[in-house]
Amino acid sequence: MHRNILVEQIRTKKSYLCVGLDTDIDKIPAHLQQQPNAIVKFNKAIIDATLPYCVSYKLNTAFYEALGSKGWDAMEETLAYIPKTHFKIADAKRADIGNTSNQYAKAFFETLDFDAITLAPYMGEDSIRPFLEYENKWAIVLALTSNKGAADFEMLGLRNGDENSHLRAEFLYERVLKKVSAWGNPNNLMFVVGATQATEFKNIREIVPDHFLLVPGVGFQGGSLQNISKNAMNSEVGLLVNVSRTIIFAGDKENFAEEAALIARQYQAEMERYI
Amino acid sequence: MHRNILVEQIRTKKSYLCVGLDTDIDKIPAHLQQQPNAIVKFNKAIIDATLPYCVSYKLNTAFYEALGSKGWDAMEETLAYIPKTHFKIADAKRADIGNTSNQYAKAFFETLDFDAITLAPYMGEDSIRPFLEYENKWAIVLALTSNKGAADFEMLGLRNGDENSHLRAEFLYERVLKKVSAWGNPNNLMFVVGATQATEFKNIREIVPDHFLLVPGVGFQGGSLQNISKNAMNSEVGLLVNVSRTIIFAGDKENFAEEAALIARQYQAEMERYI
Repeated sequence: MHRNILVEQIRTKKSYLCVGLDTDIDKIPAHLQQQPNAIVKFNKAIIDATLPYCVSYKLNTAFYEALGSKGWDAMEETLAYIPKTHFKIADAKRADIGNTSNQYAKAFFETLDFDAITLAPYMGEDSIRPFLEYENKWAIVLALTSNKGAADFEMLGLRNGDENSHLRAEFLYERVLKKVSAWGNPNNLMFVVGATQATEFKNIREIVPDHFLLVPGVGFQGGSLQNISKNAMNSEVGLLVNVSRTIIFAGDKENFAEEAALIARQYQAEMERYI
Repeated sequence: MHRNILVEQIRTKKSYLCVGLDTDIDKIPAHLQQQPNAIVKFNKAIIDATLPYCVSYKLNTAFYEALGSKGWDAMEETLAYIPKTHFKIADAKRADIGNTSNQYAKAFFETLDFDAITLAPYMGEDSIRPFLEYENKWAIVLALTSNKGAADFEMLGLRNGDENSHLRAEFLYERVLKKVSAWGNPNNLMFVVGATQATEFKNIREIVPDHFLLVPGVGFQGGSLQNISKNAMNSEVGLLVNVSRTIIFAGDKENFAEEAALIARQYQAEMERYI
């Protein structure tokens, strides 16, 4: 999907909501669990119900892989069901040496028709490059994640040759933003920034003013939609805020899809105020 | 697999070779390519031929995912074919927030019966922990990889409060070794160290004297088996040296498996000298 189309969808729907299909077989409504193809049935119902309120769906590959090749089938079938209007993200956290990343790019951009894939930056440039070579496809690289472990490495201070400065050290995640943004451009590259990392939003926008940010951590993980929206929105909105569990597991009865739609609509309504 | 059994296998076979099943459908012999289930046929022939010379197989998930759910089936079938004597590694480079890493652990340690999975450390402790909670299963965490991009982040110098020291700064990969090794122990945790990173081998062994190292980069990527063996072997050998393309694509004719066995045997013979 070209960036212009994504921005147009956001403007039209007054929403930058991404619904995360982290479909855990143990958490879907009991009446579905025993049915054949339960995951796909659940996903299709959630997609039908939330389509008007979101611009994107994110499939977390872990939840599908946990079911083996049946799960991979369910991912393919779910993906095929999402209409072209919606930006489709493989939340896969991949990246490997170039020869291998080529194969991951093929897996998610050719064999599967995702618009974007999330990537871990640890292995550097040749692990990311293959994903940037597809037209209208996107690499979404981890910068500062929403979890507690973000403090372990992402927020380590780097030595930068000016150690006597009273300024704080540059963080690893900042170097990731600076380096990786030079490998691509705002038409093929986004960054993951956790909604729980409120103190860093303004700083991140100074480093990458034009890139879209994919923002997990709103909802169950406790991040604030208001905070990320006020501090990191740019002139093209530039945000995709993901909500997974709070929407898809809103209800556990027959009417689970309506319950999900209700929560998705609440997020959309709040986003409409910020745009 | 318990560490004692792995060490025993290494001692018995006088080999610490891991054969990498990076099975690229475009690179397997032409006479196989058009056959149904070509990948599995190829893998089974390679496994049969190389079994006596190696102690481990590593399946690179990217090459299977590139084929969609059929590829995932091929991975399952290949895995089931590898005998219990051999240590089975999912080279998957996963890791995500705890809730998601739980699912990846389930995918590779329960749904699939791998002994180990490779993981990227960027997201920190809660992204690695779920893999350490299985008995006789292993997390193999990226430390210093074999590719050019290792210089981008893995070898960044960290600020450590003693900036006027004339010693070089601590590298990110060193911090990864120190921190991650405290989360597990030499019975459930290994590290990936590229064979191309010769200058760092001794240093790495000082930081993690007892852990197994999974070493890619010998063969096609140009790393030296002699060098890693001389500088990073410990009293229990402590190395699994992976060779992929050089072995599995040694021949492209009907006798491809014999050609692969020949190369695997050469590596085993060289290893026998170093043990």
